[in-house]
Amino acid sequence: MDQEKTSMLLSARRDAGSRSGRRHLLLAAVGLLLTPMLLLATVFSCMGSVSIRPSDLVDQQPTLQVDVTPTDLLAQCDEKFFTQTLDHFDVGAPTYQQRYFVCDRHFRPGGVMFFYVGNEADVELYLNHTGLMWENADEFGATLVFAEHRYFGKSVPFGKNVTKHMQYLSTEQTLADYAVLITHLKEEWQREIPVIGFGGSYGGMLGSWFRMKYPHIIDGVIAGSAPILSFLGDEVPLDKGSFERIVTFDASEEAGSAPNCVPNIRRTWPAMTTLGKTKEGRQQLKEALSLCDSVAVESEEDVEEVMEWAKSAFDYMAMGNYPYPSSYIMNGVSVLPAYPVRVACSYVADEFTEDDEVGLLSAFSKSLGVYYNSTLDQKCYELSASSNESALDSDFWDYIFCSEIYQPQSVEEDSMFWAAPWNYTADYENCQSEWGIEIRPLWATTQYGGRKALKAVSNIIFSNGNYDPWSGTGVLQNFSDSVVALSVEGGAHHLDLMFSNKLDTPSVLAVRETEKKHMHKWAREYYEDKAGIASE
Amino acid sequence: MDQEKTSMLLSARRDAGSRSGRRHLLLAAVGLLLTPMLLLATVFSCMGSVSIRPSDLVDQQPTLQVDVTPTDLLAQCDEKFFTQTLDHFDVGAPTYQQRYFVCDRHFRPGGVMFFYVGNEADVELYLNHTGLMWENADEFGATLVFAEHRYFGKSVPFGKNVTKHMQYLSTEQTLADYAVLITHLKEEWQREIPVIGFGGSYGGMLGSWFRMKYPHIIDGVIAGSAPILSFLGDEVPLDKGSFERIVTFDASEEAGSAPNCVPNIRRTWPAMTTLGKTKEGRQQLKEALSLCDSVAVESEEDVEEVMEWAKSAFDYMAMGNYPYPSSYIMNGVSVLPAYPVRVACSYVADEFTEDDEVGLLSAFSKSLGVYYNSTLDQKCYELSASSNESALDSDFWDYIFCSEIYQPQSVEEDSMFWAAPWNYTADYENCQSEWGIEIRPLWATTQYGGRKALKAVSNIIFSNGNYDPWSGTGVLQNFSDSVVALSVEGGAHHLDLMFSNKLDTPSVLAVRETEKKHMHKWAREYYEDKAGIASE
Repeated sequence: MDQEKTSMLLSARRDAGSRSGRRHLLLAAVGLLLTPMLLLATVFSCMGSVSIRPSDLVDQQPTLQVDVTPTDLLAQCDEKFFTQTLDHFDVGAPTYQQRYFVCDRHFRPGGVMFFYVGNEADVELYLNHTGLMWENADEFGATLVFAEHRYFGKSVPFGKNVTKHMQYLSTEQTLADYAVLITHLKEEWQREIPVIGFGGSYGGMLGSWFRMKYPHIIDGVIAGSAPILSFLGDEVPLDKGSFERIVTFDASEEAGSAPNCVPNIRRTWPAMTTLGKTKEGRQQLKEALSLCDSVAVESEEDVEEVMEWAKSAFDYMAMGNYPYPSSYIMNGVSVLPAYPVRVACSYVADEFTEDDEVGLLSAFSKSLGVYYNSTLDQKCYELSASSNESALDSDFWDYIFCSEIYQPQSVEEDSMFWAAPWNYTADYENCQSEWGIEIRPLWATTQYGGRKALKAVSNIIFSNGNYDPWSGTGVLQNFSDSVVALSVEGGAHHLDLMFSNKLDTPSVLAVRETEKKHMHKWAREYYEDKAGIASE
Repeated sequence: MDQEKTSMLLSARRDAGSRSGRRHLLLAAVGLLLTPMLLLATVFSCMGSVSIRPSDLVDQQPTLQVDVTPTDLLAQCDEKFFTQTLDHFDVGAPTYQQRYFVCDRHFRPGGVMFFYVGNEADVELYLNHTGLMWENADEFGATLVFAEHRYFGKSVPFGKNVTKHMQYLSTEQTLADYAVLITHLKEEWQREIPVIGFGGSYGGMLGSWFRMKYPHIIDGVIAGSAPILSFLGDEVPLDKGSFERIVTFDASEEAGSAPNCVPNIRRTWPAMTTLGKTKEGRQQLKEALSLCDSVAVESEEDVEEVMEWAKSAFDYMAMGNYPYPSSYIMNGVSVLPAYPVRVACSYVADEFTEDDEVGLLSAFSKSLGVYYNSTLDQKCYELSASSNESALDSDFWDYIFCSEIYQPQSVEEDSMFWAAPWNYTADYENCQSEWGIEIRPLWATTQYGGRKALKAVSNIIFSNGNYDPWSGTGVLQNFSDSVVALSVEGGAHHLDLMFSNKLDTPSVLAVRETEKKHMHKWAREYYEDKAGIASE
């Protein structure tokens, strides 16, 4: 996992060093599954004026109910490498070694292949967390394959020179990797079996596009929390503000949070802006928020950075707003409590008088600690990481975002944050300065088709939890009998893909049952079709 | 059309200089729509011992019934160029100018776009011959767009250095060109209209793949004579010998040819082989076949070249075995008579005694004249072109064949030719020596899916004539209500796409009517869907 961590640290450094014009880009660019470590990495022990003690946190669920990954998963799998061409559409291109894991102990004749459509991280992360594959392996007689996305984990071409060869990092090449790998495995094993894909977040986007473009390779796909409707140029105008609207929903009474939470959080931003206008105010702000002494808050622009940092905590807690304590959003390094947004909100549940800005911010600081002090050992907050990572490492998710899947976002008045319109110019300039490439704002829709393509495909299950801020640009309605939207009430980012937990909601249990029915149907149809061919 | 001709001349030169091991590759590599001029170009006036006079040809149909293209088609269109990226999957790639024609006089609101999915030639060829688009333009209120395939016609990147940049010539990039172009045109014109694709031969393959990969861009496709099942790795083993089996069928009594034709033609090959063993025999052969004095027939290998040349005439006549005189297979330069295979067979309708090899070959020579003397002014046959074309020109179809869509072929005992097994090694070595690239024998099926993909798509009409040798690897059965196979009885290579002719068979008229019904259905469904979105 070293490489991933390093990459994430670099992301953190970038974030910390960002200009305000870069904000929305970053939100989107790092907003998917790569994000968990992003801001966690910004927290380091240091001496500060306000200590945040573990005892400040509300009760967590008993440890037994944490989503502890079975520790022997990797031991059940073989790590393998496959020689892939870097450009499938140019026969003369160079090759690289793609990593994948095969976990074959549940397979039996008449079974299936469960294929994880790897996304933007070391594939071990998905191997260790995609409980839906593991828990159904026996029932389906499934061999499990976890394929790593090119340029991530151990599937990085060109070694240390990788950033000089970015042209091979694309979604189309990635999908072709998976098509070639599956074809190879079925041939190597001499198994004619159905293949069922699984992917979460960007992996769910890839999975649904995989089914769209290669229906002969993948028989059906479970796409968890895949925001495939987050692009310009679709037949229905894009709702750019849905992300923060849902983060706000998570902090609302309707989602189980304290009634005062949203109004209080909405007050923190003008409070910070007002304090930020004077040197004295900035010092008050710094102390109230428990920022470390070393954090420079010396201008209004610095205050904007602090606001962005604070807001990000809620973005990630909303994604990880699971019904039980989970380490997933924290990449296994630490644990968020059950329903972390509710926990964070509990610190700002009181009423604060109109002139008690410092009291409000001090309380808010504890809210932020749910995320930024998830390790429970921080005395104060640092905004930037001490950077010791290699200059050659890079944020490849950011490249994909810039080159192909640009997701415009805005913050609307209906959120609990400050309104910020979509700023294409800033996004464009950031991609130019970071990578020297031009955003193609319509490309994702030209290539993958948005809603119209969903009317032409089959066998994709889109699951979305209403606590997940990405669900606003996910598929929330059926497109046909086999392109189906499943709603996970009270679920956050692809909860249904996770290992079962005693605290799972009835909704996620029902969704998993429905998913299983579709998976059985896909497998059955495959074998019926095969029998039909044989009898011809 | 100059470039295309030059390219074809080069193909001819290559063919003439081919080794026997290269035969099957060439058959396949030049066997699609690029082929017509290939061997025509090998015929040049020269002094020979046997003259083939026009009067030797049987009666042709009256000129009025020839498939004369309306002369003003180009005048109804605007020639345009669009800046395309050469690598759609690498945002930083260079660009080129793609040519397309827009013929807009029939468009009306509520209408459609008819889009020709350009294949391996100057797009003017398709503009001038795709009568199905022109003749339905008014009824559908259609604007006509003819898009040129990259690297062909005037859509050639890198100018004279093009052969040094072959990596951008691929089917995937070509399909992306079309997706981007259509998106651009609809945006530029501010027209939300359905798009119906048309393509013949390789264009039909591209068209069906386009619908498969971009169903949100193209609403339905008429794919005429598209041999999309001609690849290895499909769920049903490939019948590699179908091409020559159907050529043989065209020469049979069942297809209207003289009963003695097939047995006589079958005898010509051993006759040539026997004569080829001696110097005297080779001279007899040369005279009997009306080869020019300048043609070197000095070894058994030379005789093999002559046999290949003779066989090719039937391959092309079978493709052009239309019910009326047509210049299409001859690329507009000359005219083949109605049912050219029947005409060719009429010259070998007699019985020849067992020892009258020379008489048989002399008669056969006249059969060959239907194709090689279609200009009616040849005195003898030359096998090779005098080459004056630029060394920079090249056969790009051959590259596509080698790089992506390798179609294995064999000649089986059931043909009227000599049996020749599939020779992968020879094909592989040819692609290596010509382009330095490796054939990927399974790539087309991995990328485009063969039969299994056809079960997952919709809105493709596959038409095939039973006289067309490519029909053996076309789609001959329905895969669903909207992936439909239409049989053109007595039709050759995509007859249904051509302009109407008094001599059209009842079958082709019926097929065109069925195609129209599907086209209307696709357009109707588009507008119904659009109305549904608007009312939501």
